[in-house]
Amino acid sequence: MSKNFEVSALLDYYGMLLTDKQREAVELYYNEDLSLGEIAENLDISRQGVRDSVKRAEAVLFEAEEKLGLLKKNREIHEHLDEIRRNIDIIDELNIKRYRSNDINESIKVILKELEMLNEL
Amino acid sequence: MSKNFEVSALLDYYGMLLTDKQREAVELYYNEDLSLGEIAENLDISRQGVRDSVKRAEAVLFEAEEKLGLLKKNREIHEHLDEIRRNIDIIDELNIKRYRSNDINESIKVILKELEMLNEL
Repeated sequence: MSKNFEVSALLDYYGMLLTDKQREAVELYYNEDLSLGEIAENLDISRQGVRDSVKRAEAVLFEAEEKLGLLKKNREIHEHLDEIRRNIDIIDELNIKRYRSNDINESIKVILKELEMLNEL
Repeated sequence: MSKNFEVSALLDYYGMLLTDKQREAVELYYNEDLSLGEIAENLDISRQGVRDSVKRAEAVLFEAEEKLGLLKKNREIHEHLDEIRRNIDIIDELNIKRYRSNDINESIKVILKELEMLNEL
């Protein structure tokens, strides 16, 4: 069974769609990097049971992304936010070097704070 | 059966999670504002069948929002984007009135374009 490292990212978005058992197995496998055998021992179920849960969880996660596309959309959002950040930095530098406007500086500070909050969502 | 107008918004986010039949019924009911009887006639199924599809679709949509919270998250994103926009407008006005910097103007134009693209996502 080969690991698909996109699964960790998908878990952040769609983990709530899994059953407790599926989520537990897939988190130990992908986020804690335990082997199927170790997970089986931890959860006191068969190795095959763990394998089935992980496979089913992966299917649910990939299907959710295909239907809802949150991971793809979130990457696009972050590209736009990065471009805004780069241009705010340009304005900030120009203001510091040339114009020294406190009003511009205040607005830049608000925008940087908002960008930070957006990056945390 | 009373209409919950949040359903229209939820449809934009989670419509893909519905079966074709559920989506068809709920879209006609909420977005086209047809009555259950009119939908039944259009789709050539019973009025009760339409009602069941709409009720089931609503349940799927509200459950999806409870688990994934996209509508809530999107509203938060838009509040932050609006605050960024307000502050960009402040900087833009200051620049036009006082500093007349082409470089700041260029960066503002890029940011406004990025905000526009973010609002369309």
